[in-house]
Amino acid sequence: MPEKKPFLAPTAQARQMAQGLIAQADHAALASLSPDGMQPSVSRIALAQGDGGVVLSLLSDLAPHKAALRAHPACALLLGQPSGTGDPLAEPRLTLHATAQILARPSPAHDAARRRFLAQRPKAALYADFGDFHFVVFTITDALLNAGFGKAYKLTQTDVQPPTPSP
Amino acid sequence: MPEKKPFLAPTAQARQMAQGLIAQADHAALASLSPDGMQPSVSRIALAQGDGGVVLSLLSDLAPHKAALRAHPACALLLGQPSGTGDPLAEPRLTLHATAQILARPSPAHDAARRRFLAQRPKAALYADFGDFHFVVFTITDALLNAGFGKAYKLTQTDVQPPTPSP
Repeated sequence: MPEKKPFLAPTAQARQMAQGLIAQADHAALASLSPDGMQPSVSRIALAQGDGGVVLSLLSDLAPHKAALRAHPACALLLGQPSGTGDPLAEPRLTLHATAQILARPSPAHDAARRRFLAQRPKAALYADFGDFHFVVFTITDALLNAGFGKAYKLTQTDVQPPTPSP
Repeated sequence: MPEKKPFLAPTAQARQMAQGLIAQADHAALASLSPDGMQPSVSRIALAQGDGGVVLSLLSDLAPHKAALRAHPACALLLGQPSGTGDPLAEPRLTLHATAQILARPSPAHDAARRRFLAQRPKAALYADFGDFHFVVFTITDALLNAGFGKAYKLTQTDVQPPTPSP
């Protein structure tokens, strides 16, 4: 019996689907690890597209995931919303493994992230400058695309980069 | 300036909302930790309601989360699907911190989980008995309910138990 392999070789279509899921995402499920390193958690966060293929969020100090990311920058994001009709396991989703960087301000990186984020989510201007909120840059290390039953792809950071930065 | 508190005291309404999110969930975002303990990941899994307030899934050996849960049973599940209209951060979601148990078969626990799961997701009968699939029981340790901006509740295992088991 042939060994079953968990992942198919990446195709142009798989790369395009992954890039599309990143381009469309306005939120994600963030997996983080508690400061003591014992308890994974998962929470919904806002998402925006940054420069150079990174993704951005804006996180409050009140949320436990902020302390988790400070202690353990390695994290993951699940993108791709089920349609609400049909089987959610048959619909595409993308896991991004990433490293989170919480941006100090003032800093050029903060200003750039703020500009990009608020251009995509203008309502966040109401709280973006509160002292207990920080922009967070997620640098993608690799990705897992699940395009439905039996259609799983392991993708590199390069695979999920859009060909040209979105405006 | 009064200190901002991350969580409100649980109310009857918050408990009811959490129980409703569990009762309605047919999928979740699973946060797990890689066997080496270094990399959190997150993936979409099917979900069903088990007996005594646990939740159930059916996982393939091909998916990396299965090996992650074998190595580190502490995990988390995010429930509650955004409507697709409006701000997904304003819509309710529930984080369950849980311990995963992968059920061996044959065993009475496997048979009970199989019966409950397939009653709720009959199509899974197509692969439920494959040797590389296992039912998984998630025992809830505690939960975080986010009912929208500024409405976060920390709930106990008891808080999220339904008053009577569903049939």
